[in-house]
Amino acid sequence: MQDKPLVGIIMGSISDRDIMDECVKTLKEMYINFEIAVSSAHRSPDKTRDYAINASARGIEVIIAGAGWAAHLAGVIASYTTLPVIGVPIDSSPLRGIDSLLSTAQMPPGVPVATMAIGIGGAQNAAVFAAQILALKYPDIAKRLDQYKEGLKLRVEEVEKD
Amino acid sequence: MQDKPLVGIIMGSISDRDIMDECVKTLKEMYINFEIAVSSAHRSPDKTRDYAINASARGIEVIIAGAGWAAHLAGVIASYTTLPVIGVPIDSSPLRGIDSLLSTAQMPPGVPVATMAIGIGGAQNAAVFAAQILALKYPDIAKRLDQYKEGLKLRVEEVEKD
Amino acid sequence: MQDKPLVGIIMGSISDRDIMDECVKTLKEMYINFEIAVSSAHRSPDKTRDYAINASARGIEVIIAGAGWAAHLAGVIASYTTLPVIGVPIDSSPLRGIDSLLSTAQMPPGVPVATMAIGIGGAQNAAVFAAQILALKYPDIAKRLDQYKEGLKLRVEEVEKD
Amino acid sequence: MQDKPLVGIIMGSISDRDIMDECVKTLKEMYINFEIAVSSAHRSPDKTRDYAINASARGIEVIIAGAGWAAHLAGVIASYTTLPVIGVPIDSSPLRGIDSLLSTAQMPPGVPVATMAIGIGGAQNAAVFAAQILALKYPDIAKRLDQYKEGLKLRVEEVEKD
Amino acid sequence: MQDKPLVGIIMGSISDRDIMDECVKTLKEMYINFEIAVSSAHRSPDKTRDYAINASARGIEVIIAGAGWAAHLAGVIASYTTLPVIGVPIDSSPLRGIDSLLSTAQMPPGVPVATMAIGIGGAQNAAVFAAQILALKYPDIAKRLDQYKEGLKLRVEEVEKD
Amino acid sequence: MQDKPLVGIIMGSISDRDIMDECVKTLKEMYINFEIAVSSAHRSPDKTRDYAINASARGIEVIIAGAGWAAHLAGVIASYTTLPVIGVPIDSSPLRGIDSLLSTAQMPPGVPVATMAIGIGGAQNAAVFAAQILALKYPDIAKRLDQYKEGLKLRVEEVEKD
Amino acid sequence: MQDKPLVGIIMGSISDRDIMDECVKTLKEMYINFEIAVSSAHRSPDKTRDYAINASARGIEVIIAGAGWAAHLAGVIASYTTLPVIGVPIDSSPLRGIDSLLSTAQMPPGVPVATMAIGIGGAQNAAVFAAQILALKYPDIAKRLDQYKEGLKLRVEEVEKD
Amino acid sequence: MQDKPLVGIIMGSISDRDIMDECVKTLKEMYINFEIAVSSAHRSPDKTRDYAINASARGIEVIIAGAGWAAHLAGVIASYTTLPVIGVPIDSSPLRGIDSLLSTAQMPPGVPVATMAIGIGGAQNAAVFAAQILALKYPDIAKRLDQYKEGLKLRVEEVEKD
Repeated sequence: MQDKPLVGIIMGSISDRDIMDECVKTLKEMYINFEIAVSSAHRSPDKTRDYAINASARGIEVIIAGAGWAAHLAGVIASYTTLPVIGVPIDSSPLRGIDSLLSTAQMPPGVPVATMAIGIGGAQNAAVFAAQILALKYPDIAKRLDQYKEGLKLRVEEVEKD
Repeated sequence: MQDKPLVGIIMGSISDRDIMDECVKTLKEMYINFEIAVSSAHRSPDKTRDYAINASARGIEVIIAGAGWAAHLAGVIASYTTLPVIGVPIDSSPLRGIDSLLSTAQMPPGVPVATMAIGIGGAQNAAVFAAQILALKYPDIAKRLDQYKEGLKLRVEEVEKD
Repeated sequence: MQDKPLVGIIMGSISDRDIMDECVKTLKEMYINFEIAVSSAHRSPDKTRDYAINASARGIEVIIAGAGWAAHLAGVIASYTTLPVIGVPIDSSPLRGIDSLLSTAQMPPGVPVATMAIGIGGAQNAAVFAAQILALKYPDIAKRLDQYKEGLKLRVEEVEKD
Repeated sequence: MQDKPLVGIIMGSISDRDIMDECVKTLKEMYINFEIAVSSAHRSPDKTRDYAINASARGIEVIIAGAGWAAHLAGVIASYTTLPVIGVPIDSSPLRGIDSLLSTAQMPPGVPVATMAIGIGGAQNAAVFAAQILALKYPDIAKRLDQYKEGLKLRVEEVEKD
Repeated sequence: MQDKPLVGIIMGSISDRDIMDECVKTLKEMYINFEIAVSSAHRSPDKTRDYAINASARGIEVIIAGAGWAAHLAGVIASYTTLPVIGVPIDSSPLRGIDSLLSTAQMPPGVPVATMAIGIGGAQNAAVFAAQILALKYPDIAKRLDQYKEGLKLRVEEVEKD
Repeated sequence: MQDKPLVGIIMGSISDRDIMDECVKTLKEMYINFEIAVSSAHRSPDKTRDYAINASARGIEVIIAGAGWAAHLAGVIASYTTLPVIGVPIDSSPLRGIDSLLSTAQMPPGVPVATMAIGIGGAQNAAVFAAQILALKYPDIAKRLDQYKEGLKLRVEEVEKD
Repeated sequence: MQDKPLVGIIMGSISDRDIMDECVKTLKEMYINFEIAVSSAHRSPDKTRDYAINASARGIEVIIAGAGWAAHLAGVIASYTTLPVIGVPIDSSPLRGIDSLLSTAQMPPGVPVATMAIGIGGAQNAAVFAAQILALKYPDIAKRLDQYKEGLKLRVEEVEKD
Repeated sequence: MQDKPLVGIIMGSISDRDIMDECVKTLKEMYINFEIAVSSAHRSPDKTRDYAINASARGIEVIIAGAGWAAHLAGVIASYTTLPVIGVPIDSSPLRGIDSLLSTAQMPPGVPVATMAIGIGGAQNAAVFAAQILALKYPDIAKRLDQYKEGLKLRVEEVEKD
């Protein structure tokens, strides 16, 4: 396991924590070091900006941003860094996440956000996708990703035996 | 007419200009002084941030922000100023503006954006709403707003005579 | 605090009260005086009309209208006054507020409604946006708005210490 | 044919005329007398209100209201009369009429609007539905409605012969 | 009160009964005689067809049809009668009634269904709209409708006194 | 090729013909005999009913029904026959076929419609699916279906050579 | 009853089992032999592929595939077999199945999936539709299907007697 | 520039080429080597599978998959490789890409697809995101990515000078 975090997890509100914990859990399963921050694109914009600007220098290589409603967090971070940013739309509004999905995915040309599925499954997948990116560079992560993926298949297979 | 601009119009892309010109035209009809800027929330974030931070000191009292797709512009500006920010969702994406409407309107608690209708009608209304805000403080704007509103009624009435 | 109300809160049904209480609470946090009315655009149209026509003379400077379903309330009020009208779409129908959002935001040229997010967050933001409008004219409200906004940032920051 | 109009057609904007002409044409096919008005729920609210309040006294028995965007027209009229109001949602906005359909159909308890399909087909059907209402009371309209309906079947049948 | 039913209420499934009971209750409040049937457009099509074909001869003057999912019931009945048919879209599917709203409202030219709001409010409004149709012909129903409408206003007004 | 038609194609309006011609063309490519009818679920309901009731006796084994708007045609036919009914939602309304997709797919328990994609691709696929059903029983159709499918692959492969 | 299964039921996740059990129950009511598998299009793609490739040789004549979210299962299976594939979109995501409906229905030209309604009703209908396909070839299934359909009518009729 | 391709672009149909050319153009601007393939998830599934299985061995490090309608292509590829897969939803269907967005983004836990915006902007962003991933490992790509991003800012700034 790397000594310093390679993945930065940021969420727009402490109320997104339950969803983003699935991301935490999945990174831990693959022994990928990470850090967590809570910072709103709108209520604490300079903190968010500083986070994005400094992430690369701190050694972060992938940022995962989870937010609900008009989810600008991933996009705002992507505007301040060239690190890959993965967005997790969270279904916290009455519209059940179609607002956060569109706010995260429909980014303008030049500033992409890698958008995951809405909610807890998307949080898990953000961790997997971060691992897929890092696996290109870190053979040990590639190995643990393969084990994780193999585990998914086994779980499907075991289920059928019941 | 005020000597310096009271309204700042900002748009995310020069391609939004045709839509936002309706806003310009309507402010001119009411002799309200304004300035125009093009700055993307994502491609030129610090320019956008500077714009928002400095607007009040420059004498701007209302900001109108027009953007399409995952329209973060109004929200990002609102995060850096306590001036009222009016958002115009623009129908430039294949989803015809439902993405920009949700990205503009579904702001989190604490950081409102006054969202208008999608497209050219919303651009016109942003100007009218700016006038309605300024009319509370500037009696001459109040007078010109009343004249503008009276004109709308007359246009409806004249139509029927045909 | 002003002696007489500057903000008029109106809602279409008493069942919208729980949502609109967030608006009340937020205005109180900023010591902005307000009044509350219940009047349906459809079931008591003349009461609603009278409310809108007389608001300005009573000293009201901003109107906040909350309604669900085909939420016409904000639009109807905006048709009878040139005061700024802020609309709060409420998620009381089976469609979870997309109906009230579209009914509130998609206003025709000439008669804007400043549309907030759906539901309780939108109700809070309506109060903040009213304060942002009033702050242009009333320095004491400007000051209390700044304090309120600062509080939001602190709350985000404190959260991370846990 | 009745000497005075039984059906009042009202539209929110002169730009809705092309759509509402299908309604006019269909009423003419059934020799049902009607009147036409242009009045916006928002730009000329008192004209709209007067129209609704006085319609019954003028002998109107059914009102057809066509509007686009946040289509409040039918609902506002329904709030001022107990005559049956038929709403035609018009697809004039970028959202292609889903906004006007929801704004027309999702009326609150107590004040119904009989909502038709979006656009030109809905305009035609508004005329047919008005005829169906009037046919309950006027035997000559019932007869002409039957002839109209029979014509529809014949047109379908003829088509297949080609 | 008329001796025989003037209004026929039909629903597609016994599970729609709770919703449609609001319709029943409202007709009773206005002392309008009605009958109730359960018949599916799809599972018992000939029963539904017979219902529609014979309704007029039985003295029925308005039909109210409530259904969920791909709600064809109102449309199928409208295809077999020239009586006014009022459709109540019911939110029984996972899509919360947007499917039944579109299936009920988007009728093709020539065969209108008067579509109400989704769910229990729409069921109540179907009764009110039926009364509005019948009031054109039956002065006693007109009188009771006026009383009902007056009651709605009073309820709104009383609420505010609290 | 069978002497008598095995597939019945029915469409709600002659204006659906251009879309449904893709279905015709695809059946011809596989030498599957078919018949075509135009009959509206709403404007000619008894013709539609007779079609459905008699189809099996005439030797039809699969019915393909194409319709737009509140597309009830496939559902109405399915209510009168136990033959497999394939529905093609057509994008003829301003809502671009989401209305016809939901009206076709969201059938109630007991009366399925096999729903295809919206529009011309769905019309083609209806023919392919009809062939897939018939191939279970008719070896010659199975053979021609395999050839058709193989052709699809070849077309994809050839494309890449360019 | 056939000795070996004619229908293959496959689902993307063991969590879809509750929904798909309605399919199982309905096939049992009609004494149609079936087999069940759990295999994800994405987590166990080769198992899914093998299932599809070998189904026909094992005697399976119809495949029913149930999945939620971006429901690719039915489409992936359809890409590997010319057996008729029936898709059941499951409402397991926050978007309540509109995602799985579109992912299942909007198949490209050449590879149809017969899409059912979302959720438990669709699962039941998948069984009925499978029976409708098999009834063309197996007279005993045709007979039991007729009995099943008759039962549906009786249940509707009995309900009204209460 | 690397000698062999690092990025594999795959599209579901030759008709997607115009959209995906924006991706090609952007990779060329950054001198990133790539290969292009046309392979349908459904019409040529084994070719698609082989592509995914062999991509890593051929030296591909990122795969970009563009598809419309029920866009399964990116998901199917992601099921056969642990390389990062970027999905571009294409607006080729009548629903203007909301179907392909949901089919691409709403992937189940364990198998992520990095979803971009709908259409041509998403195709451009897929190239940018691929560069952002590769920049973590290849310093020369990092440099060219920075130049590309700087160019975007300049273009925004130049625009305002006009």
